[in-house]
Amino acid sequence: MNTRIEHDLLGDMAVPAEAWYGIQTQRALDNFSITGVPISHFPAFIKALAMVKSAAAKANRDLGSLDAHKAEAIIVACDEIIAGELHDQFVVDLIQGGAGTSTNMNANEVIANLALAKMGHAKGEYQYLHPNDDVNRSQSTNDAYPTAVCLAIQFAAEPLEQAIIRLKESLEAKGREFADIVKMGRTQMQDAVPMTLGQEFEAFAVNLGEDIDRLHEASKLLCEVNLGGTAIGTGINTHSRYRALAVSYLAEISGKPIVSASNLVEATSDMGAFVLFSGILKRFAIKLGKMCNDLRLLSSGPRTGFAEIMLPPMQPGSSIMPGKVNPVIPEVVNQTAYQVIASDLAVTLAAEAGQLQLNAMEPLIVYNLLNSMKMLGSACNTLNERCIQGIRANEEQCARHVDNSIGIITALVPHIGYANSTRIAAQALNSGSTVRELVLSEGLLSEAQLDRLLSPRSMLAPFTEG
Amino acid sequence: MNTRIEHDLLGDMAVPAEAWYGIQTQRALDNFSITGVPISHFPAFIKALAMVKSAAAKANRDLGSLDAHKAEAIIVACDEIIAGELHDQFVVDLIQGGAGTSTNMNANEVIANLALAKMGHAKGEYQYLHPNDDVNRSQSTNDAYPTAVCLAIQFAAEPLEQAIIRLKESLEAKGREFADIVKMGRTQMQDAVPMTLGQEFEAFAVNLGEDIDRLHEASKLLCEVNLGGTAIGTGINTHSRYRALAVSYLAEISGKPIVSASNLVEATSDMGAFVLFSGILKRFAIKLGKMCNDLRLLSSGPRTGFAEIMLPPMQPGSSIMPGKVNPVIPEVVNQTAYQVIASDLAVTLAAEAGQLQLNAMEPLIVYNLLNSMKMLGSACNTLNERCIQGIRANEEQCARHVDNSIGIITALVPHIGYANSTRIAAQALNSGSTVRELVLSEGLLSEAQLDRLLSPRSMLAPFTEG
Amino acid sequence: MNTRIEHDLLGDMAVPAEAWYGIQTQRALDNFSITGVPISHFPAFIKALAMVKSAAAKANRDLGSLDAHKAEAIIVACDEIIAGELHDQFVVDLIQGGAGTSTNMNANEVIANLALAKMGHAKGEYQYLHPNDDVNRSQSTNDAYPTAVCLAIQFAAEPLEQAIIRLKESLEAKGREFADIVKMGRTQMQDAVPMTLGQEFEAFAVNLGEDIDRLHEASKLLCEVNLGGTAIGTGINTHSRYRALAVSYLAEISGKPIVSASNLVEATSDMGAFVLFSGILKRFAIKLGKMCNDLRLLSSGPRTGFAEIMLPPMQPGSSIMPGKVNPVIPEVVNQTAYQVIASDLAVTLAAEAGQLQLNAMEPLIVYNLLNSMKMLGSACNTLNERCIQGIRANEEQCARHVDNSIGIITALVPHIGYANSTRIAAQALNSGSTVRELVLSEGLLSEAQLDRLLSPRSMLAPFTEG
Amino acid sequence: MNTRIEHDLLGDMAVPAEAWYGIQTQRALDNFSITGVPISHFPAFIKALAMVKSAAAKANRDLGSLDAHKAEAIIVACDEIIAGELHDQFVVDLIQGGAGTSTNMNANEVIANLALAKMGHAKGEYQYLHPNDDVNRSQSTNDAYPTAVCLAIQFAAEPLEQAIIRLKESLEAKGREFADIVKMGRTQMQDAVPMTLGQEFEAFAVNLGEDIDRLHEASKLLCEVNLGGTAIGTGINTHSRYRALAVSYLAEISGKPIVSASNLVEATSDMGAFVLFSGILKRFAIKLGKMCNDLRLLSSGPRTGFAEIMLPPMQPGSSIMPGKVNPVIPEVVNQTAYQVIASDLAVTLAAEAGQLQLNAMEPLIVYNLLNSMKMLGSACNTLNERCIQGIRANEEQCARHVDNSIGIITALVPHIGYANSTRIAAQALNSGSTVRELVLSEGLLSEAQLDRLLSPRSMLAPFTEG
Repeated sequence: MNTRIEHDLLGDMAVPAEAWYGIQTQRALDNFSITGVPISHFPAFIKALAMVKSAAAKANRDLGSLDAHKAEAIIVACDEIIAGELHDQFVVDLIQGGAGTSTNMNANEVIANLALAKMGHAKGEYQYLHPNDDVNRSQSTNDAYPTAVCLAIQFAAEPLEQAIIRLKESLEAKGREFADIVKMGRTQMQDAVPMTLGQEFEAFAVNLGEDIDRLHEASKLLCEVNLGGTAIGTGINTHSRYRALAVSYLAEISGKPIVSASNLVEATSDMGAFVLFSGILKRFAIKLGKMCNDLRLLSSGPRTGFAEIMLPPMQPGSSIMPGKVNPVIPEVVNQTAYQVIASDLAVTLAAEAGQLQLNAMEPLIVYNLLNSMKMLGSACNTLNERCIQGIRANEEQCARHVDNSIGIITALVPHIGYANSTRIAAQALNSGSTVRELVLSEGLLSEAQLDRLLSPRSMLAPFTEG
Repeated sequence: MNTRIEHDLLGDMAVPAEAWYGIQTQRALDNFSITGVPISHFPAFIKALAMVKSAAAKANRDLGSLDAHKAEAIIVACDEIIAGELHDQFVVDLIQGGAGTSTNMNANEVIANLALAKMGHAKGEYQYLHPNDDVNRSQSTNDAYPTAVCLAIQFAAEPLEQAIIRLKESLEAKGREFADIVKMGRTQMQDAVPMTLGQEFEAFAVNLGEDIDRLHEASKLLCEVNLGGTAIGTGINTHSRYRALAVSYLAEISGKPIVSASNLVEATSDMGAFVLFSGILKRFAIKLGKMCNDLRLLSSGPRTGFAEIMLPPMQPGSSIMPGKVNPVIPEVVNQTAYQVIASDLAVTLAAEAGQLQLNAMEPLIVYNLLNSMKMLGSACNTLNERCIQGIRANEEQCARHVDNSIGIITALVPHIGYANSTRIAAQALNSGSTVRELVLSEGLLSEAQLDRLLSPRSMLAPFTEG
Repeated sequence: MNTRIEHDLLGDMAVPAEAWYGIQTQRALDNFSITGVPISHFPAFIKALAMVKSAAAKANRDLGSLDAHKAEAIIVACDEIIAGELHDQFVVDLIQGGAGTSTNMNANEVIANLALAKMGHAKGEYQYLHPNDDVNRSQSTNDAYPTAVCLAIQFAAEPLEQAIIRLKESLEAKGREFADIVKMGRTQMQDAVPMTLGQEFEAFAVNLGEDIDRLHEASKLLCEVNLGGTAIGTGINTHSRYRALAVSYLAEISGKPIVSASNLVEATSDMGAFVLFSGILKRFAIKLGKMCNDLRLLSSGPRTGFAEIMLPPMQPGSSIMPGKVNPVIPEVVNQTAYQVIASDLAVTLAAEAGQLQLNAMEPLIVYNLLNSMKMLGSACNTLNERCIQGIRANEEQCARHVDNSIGIITALVPHIGYANSTRIAAQALNSGSTVRELVLSEGLLSEAQLDRLLSPRSMLAPFTEG
Repeated sequence: MNTRIEHDLLGDMAVPAEAWYGIQTQRALDNFSITGVPISHFPAFIKALAMVKSAAAKANRDLGSLDAHKAEAIIVACDEIIAGELHDQFVVDLIQGGAGTSTNMNANEVIANLALAKMGHAKGEYQYLHPNDDVNRSQSTNDAYPTAVCLAIQFAAEPLEQAIIRLKESLEAKGREFADIVKMGRTQMQDAVPMTLGQEFEAFAVNLGEDIDRLHEASKLLCEVNLGGTAIGTGINTHSRYRALAVSYLAEISGKPIVSASNLVEATSDMGAFVLFSGILKRFAIKLGKMCNDLRLLSSGPRTGFAEIMLPPMQPGSSIMPGKVNPVIPEVVNQTAYQVIASDLAVTLAAEAGQLQLNAMEPLIVYNLLNSMKMLGSACNTLNERCIQGIRANEEQCARHVDNSIGIITALVPHIGYANSTRIAAQALNSGSTVRELVLSEGLLSEAQLDRLLSPRSMLAPFTEG
């Protein structure tokens, strides 16, 4: 393999000649091999890193801290990376020691070498443009990295949000499709009172839809960045106007309403916004999981379960039991939800481990947030396309359940009292008689009254007369 | 023991004659004895339950669903309970099966018997006023209980918020007190660049203070209640105008901006607002824990640690090592934080376990949220009064650390470059020489330049000239 | 209130005159008020503390490190406490800073004052027998406290184990009672192949029973104690023969096979045995939870669910739906399981937070382990007595499910092949015909063959002929 | 792309012509794309699946349930896969719905097609040898899959165990290397009493080493398999001698002491052995994390921290602070530990979600266990090779700490009492005097006594005279 020699604090080291990254990336490659998942797995993160570097270069250029010629080359290099170039050069494992220094240096080195190329120099000729002195100018990993993370999460949330919206729309469509199918509602796994299958699916839609707002709110906190704080938030080695300029350029480049955090010392070590965001992902996972549990309950059977709905069959269900079709899509979504819930714990543990002016465990937080969003997005799409859209109602079973139910006696309580109702319910259960028969035989209500009170439709909503 | 006999679906049962609660509470007492923590442990919850019952009675009265005389008795009974009466009659264990039915019935029964007393009847004479038919009228546990929980959490958040504010103010005061003490900042446990001890405490204050806003935001979601949804959110057995009336009365009684949730079927089984609230408590616990970790690091010593601050001694530290004083207050706060983080997992597990139209595990959520708030409030007060307010700075040690540090070379990077700086830093570490000496001996900067660049004050903020 | 004045490192302080505890306990009372749960909530822990103190006194006496007269008084005092005396004097909150120092000093002080009484002295006359110099002699909190914890957990495990055994026996009894009731097994909520209801309950029994062995194995690790290691495991301030003697006395007093850990420095900060024990409690909680989930599924209905079993009704199920009976006992056990799972996280967090020669968070571990065992024991007893023993089978429903099932086609696969079976299963589902009819009509098997292969009994076990 | 058409329960589908897998694998590829991590990521799992299939074929052959010619082809195919062939054909995502059916069918199909090739047939000519009827004969996913998982975990534990052993040996070597370096021990971040740096590293070694035994114990539970239970543990469709034969062949092929679980109905849905195993991995992660926390504390500095050891520099520590070297290797190991702790939660959640006769979430358990072991193995190797082996002691700093310490007064307690010692310690702290000076000036002990008692060596162990 052809190599070139680069130099850093620890001495010389060979780097593959054709690599756009440099010595510090190479060291990180050797040091970190825990997950095997490189930065390039998450293009949103690379894009965000390049945006931060571009914003810094523009601010440095304006302040005379960086030669205009160099700045221009850096900006062009960043633009290309934002457009998708050289993503395969972001090779460091996402889980890394050093609080993101290796990710930051990977970006600095790739950008420096690409900028050098633009300037007509060879890779590694850092005397003309240096990863640290120029690309990283006025920055520390400790402000550049978290700032890029804040952006990356927002970018990665976009496809997730789209996936949630599509899933919600499919659930709403099913809500409308099933609007006239009356069924028994259940509480605590016991027959309760009637509702429609449409109400059930509409409730799923509303439930998931709320989390789109929560994601937006949580994203707002991610717009407060610590760029300009450098090493520990005091802004050492920056020009006094750099912070405002850089943040303003970043807002412009990213199209996000990025602002400077009010206290950069605090912002540099604080993981609060990530914890909150992770909490929203967990909340969504919990809801997704609850819905999939319900889908598996409602489709249980075909002969010995609830069997009120039929999920579309996606694959043979058993290697031994012919004809068996299992709810494999809800099952894989349930598992995704568990993984996301577990990831929230990883975020929690990492956030609690911050020490003094920095949190060295931030890379773990980034990994888990980006991974959770990717998995949730896939899960939503899979669930939507391979399950929800193909669900059919078992209308006969729904109707049979309502007809057989004792729970409908609830509708009579305002008229015959809780004590009478309780007694008759017990009698119905033991004797097999229907509620209607027993109430009639005791003369508690007339046939006409019963017809009105026990009409399914009248049990689906509040009453309007006394 | 004197008893009276009451009756329910399952038959007759003896209740202590003097008990204000009734048969269903008695059954729950027998059934549930997991934690030993009764409802009465959390007065905010009892208050909230009585407010819901009062609001329902007023709405039922206005709609003619409840005799005005009965309604009045119920309202008066609720007022007394809100004012603190009979709290010891709320005896059921907070962790209970039945999705809160026993808590709801405990409230219904105590209120019924108190109302009966107002009406001149004996306890248990439910023919005159019935726990279910009258006190619980137009309600189900499934709407009355979650609505009360939403209120109870908001009430319980108030003393916590006050405790956070006081803690924040003490940290701000320390921030001001230590504003002129320059010390070394640390990242990844390694010497970084200078800052002031005041900045460190100010950052703690800002960090914790942010969560007051988060608690407010999370409380907003708790203002959307499902009252009027009854059993499964369809509002069965309520008058069509009941929901709006009852919610409006509840807003008036509670003084909170309570509104009706947009979809009551969804709202009845949804635990999302609790999950989010729990996430905020967890976030605060993480921050509190991180700060206490820092306090223990900064006060480590007295002779072999960082020793930059001294915590006030609260008790002898060791049964064997005389004179040892340990950071016992931060330690107990750290443990509280862990317990709250663990409680968030309990909330998560319970929320995910909802099935179909209800979440039967809601009592566990209530227990953990109320308990976490109580513990966090105590922890904040303890930390504030028994630790933060008494912290003293070790100014000599802080100054010595800055003088000895190599990290100050960072300030020279814009002037002598990253490569030169790196080389000199390594030399300083190996030789024991100071950065200043080495830079001077190499002629890289003049004494005057070094004086300016290495003055502590100039390292605490961005520079204003080129 | 009458008080007496005591003195420690921090100065003088008033203690209630009648208190058997002393100044350091008083300080701890003032410092720690997070949970409100005092040591006295767990008598097993008090017993264990007194045993450790007694063993130490005997070893010190034998070695001449403690005056025989004093030793005798201490031993008698410990015996009384082991027998249940003065437990209300163990007043410190279980969650405390100081790594258990306050608990250790509470024990030292109560024992000292009780021993002083035996010697004819007044409380607080420590010049005759001192909590630190005499009761705590040759000990540090850092070895006495963890050693007592190891014992306390073992003592507390005994009633839990008994509760598990009783629960297991009830499940076995149900297994025998239901041995002849054939029903459909279900996998992934879909009809699978036949089994007996007895097999289902027997499996529950076997499943829970295994954890008794696991508890025993985990207890074995708790028999290795660090007594004699004093402050950090080096044994400073102990006689070279003390460690062996004290441990041997402790084994004798406790009746447990207590041995000295091989490396006391390691043992002093290691929480591994507690983590493992907590993991076993979590495992048991998971199993208990899974079983309760199953019970709630199997008893779902009464008309629209699986309805294969009936749980005994323990209380009216609803404040609005008359006659509704909910699975309240499994529900409260599910919640207990979640709480125990969450407690395992608290243990995890505390264990990870150990630093250098000690883990200051051990009190949180103790609290969670003792609390989890107490809750699990109650849950097992409640579940056994108030649910399992009263479960009845719905034989008709079980039989109906088998008759209607398509899953029985699995039994024909070895004879007609997977492809044929798959085709016929699909036909049965779509047409409503039975498997038997379709196989006969296609002439794939004879009536006699079908009789044999589809007899429920033949589907419950392997076949014996080809 | 060339394709061939295959057929299953759901109809026809095209499969790439050159694929060794078949239609059901193809469907699974389309259905599941959550993690992007295919089975082939874990060769131990593929090996285990092939062993199970081979054992089943041998048993079926012996019992006459499978044509000898077919059996032979299957066995040869399995041998090749065990040897590493066709691993790239195991393409299904590890997280999948269907309780592992897709993984089982992927194995069945690849083995069938490879066996067909051995028999001279083309891929997909299942009329000669069928994935279900022949390769899967006498099996269900529900016994074949968990059995393979039990084996796979044991195989995957081997390299982890080797990594732990090597790490332990390096720590032991450091323990010997540092055996004579006396330093201050610390409890609760406060100076305690002296120990050697060697004792500290030896304790790390002992601590981690214990978990090798725990892994062995936990592996024992994984030797009890449910092979022969088929769909739900009743053994439907197996010959009565199949179970014993298959298990015995599996033991032979795998070289592991595999035995049949005592109750196969229980074993089929039980995840207890996996939960326990995961708990051991978590325990190890906690220990690893605690050690890395300590390493970061002990190496903190270089000028303002503990600075008792120096970690080998692995990469420049900062993009802005020249010369800074951070503890990047412990940091990445800490993060790995957090991820493993979080994975244990995923396992917990999945285990609790089992329903009735099966746990559909087992694939998530498998993914997390295999992933955790892989990550932990990498972390141990990285830590060993890139950190522990290169650690150097800062002897001067260790000695300085002991000389300055007040904690050494502990050694005087048996001679001057706790009260005197406490007073002098306080005086030393306030005045800056040494303990020795103060004791001498008060005439409490002679110079000779102090020389003996305060000699560092005498403070490292119990005393031998009175």
